[in-house]
Amino acid sequence: MPPPLPVLFAAGDAGPWQVERIAAVAGPGLAPAPRLAVLEGAAAAPPAGAAWTLRGTTSNTRYSMRAELDAMGARQEGLGRPAATRAALIPIRKSAAWWDLAQDERRTIFEEQSRHIGIGMDYLPGVARRLHHCRELGEPFDFLTWFEFAPADEAAFDSMLDRLRATPEWRFVEHEVEVRLSSG
Amino acid sequence: MPPPLPVLFAAGDAGPWQVERIAAVAGPGLAPAPRLAVLEGAAAAPPAGAAWTLRGTTSNTRYSMRAELDAMGARQEGLGRPAATRAALIPIRKSAAWWDLAQDERRTIFEEQSRHIGIGMDYLPGVARRLHHCRELGEPFDFLTWFEFAPADEAAFDSMLDRLRATPEWRFVEHEVEVRLSSG
Repeated sequence: MPPPLPVLFAAGDAGPWQVERIAAVAGPGLAPAPRLAVLEGAAAAPPAGAAWTLRGTTSNTRYSMRAELDAMGARQEGLGRPAATRAALIPIRKSAAWWDLAQDERRTIFEEQSRHIGIGMDYLPGVARRLHHCRELGEPFDFLTWFEFAPADEAAFDSMLDRLRATPEWRFVEHEVEVRLSSG
Repeated sequence: MPPPLPVLFAAGDAGPWQVERIAAVAGPGLAPAPRLAVLEGAAAAPPAGAAWTLRGTTSNTRYSMRAELDAMGARQEGLGRPAATRAALIPIRKSAAWWDLAQDERRTIFEEQSRHIGIGMDYLPGVARRLHHCRELGEPFDFLTWFEFAPADEAAFDSMLDRLRATPEWRFVEHEVEVRLSSG
């Protein structure tokens, strides 16, 4: 489906993903729950008794240049691969200082200083991802990034997170939670 | 208030702004109504019997560079000036072709080819504006731009609209309505 696609992440007793662990990376965490459901579409409603729900929508790219989109497009794979039985949901909120920056300042920190796109490229096609925006939805986070990968790629995924969190861009991350999941 | 500020535009029988005319610039128009209310905050609810409502939120800049933000900041004035008894609400939706472009491609069309920021600068401080985003809110438009100006600046405002609509950027506008208003 073309963006913007509304997506609802609902943690509770139901859903195809088993929650392995929830870690508070910066700021408060999220309540424990055994399962996670990922519900797509504007009509999606939170299941009764959900421990927590987070909403976002896919959208247009904000920093990627044409050459970067083409390079990613040539290598990346989609969600839902049968072998991708590991997943992660990483909600992030950035500081007011980040959002007060101009577009050129944010781009410089994002890619020229931090290589956010470049680091992500190093883990394609193993790690598939989909970014959801929620800053304009009145949600507690700005972004919800969803990742899917095979168990054999789990160490590489951890290494990618370590590299991203060591970048200048991450100095602007004031709230981050890591939800790790498995299926099948 | 810092962004994102939710704003609800409600046309109907109530509100401080008198609707002078509603013009369909591209695509369908909006239903006629005598008054317009501009309601800020997440708790704002559409008044009973509204002819139509449109929702958006302020947000961070998407194309402006630091030098452009500083130049605009030095010249622009805020909403609510007592002499600014004329206003316009211009809802716009851009095409899928626009949103499929990369950031550098959109920036090039927006400013290097169309001088969107530059044209707006020519009408500061007379024409005050506030941009609201709504593409991720499930709304029928992508943007709601609100303008306020004095009656003496009305011809200049019309000229600004003519210049913007003649740009390469506007080839991507597939739905546009112009709501013109007065108060006092």
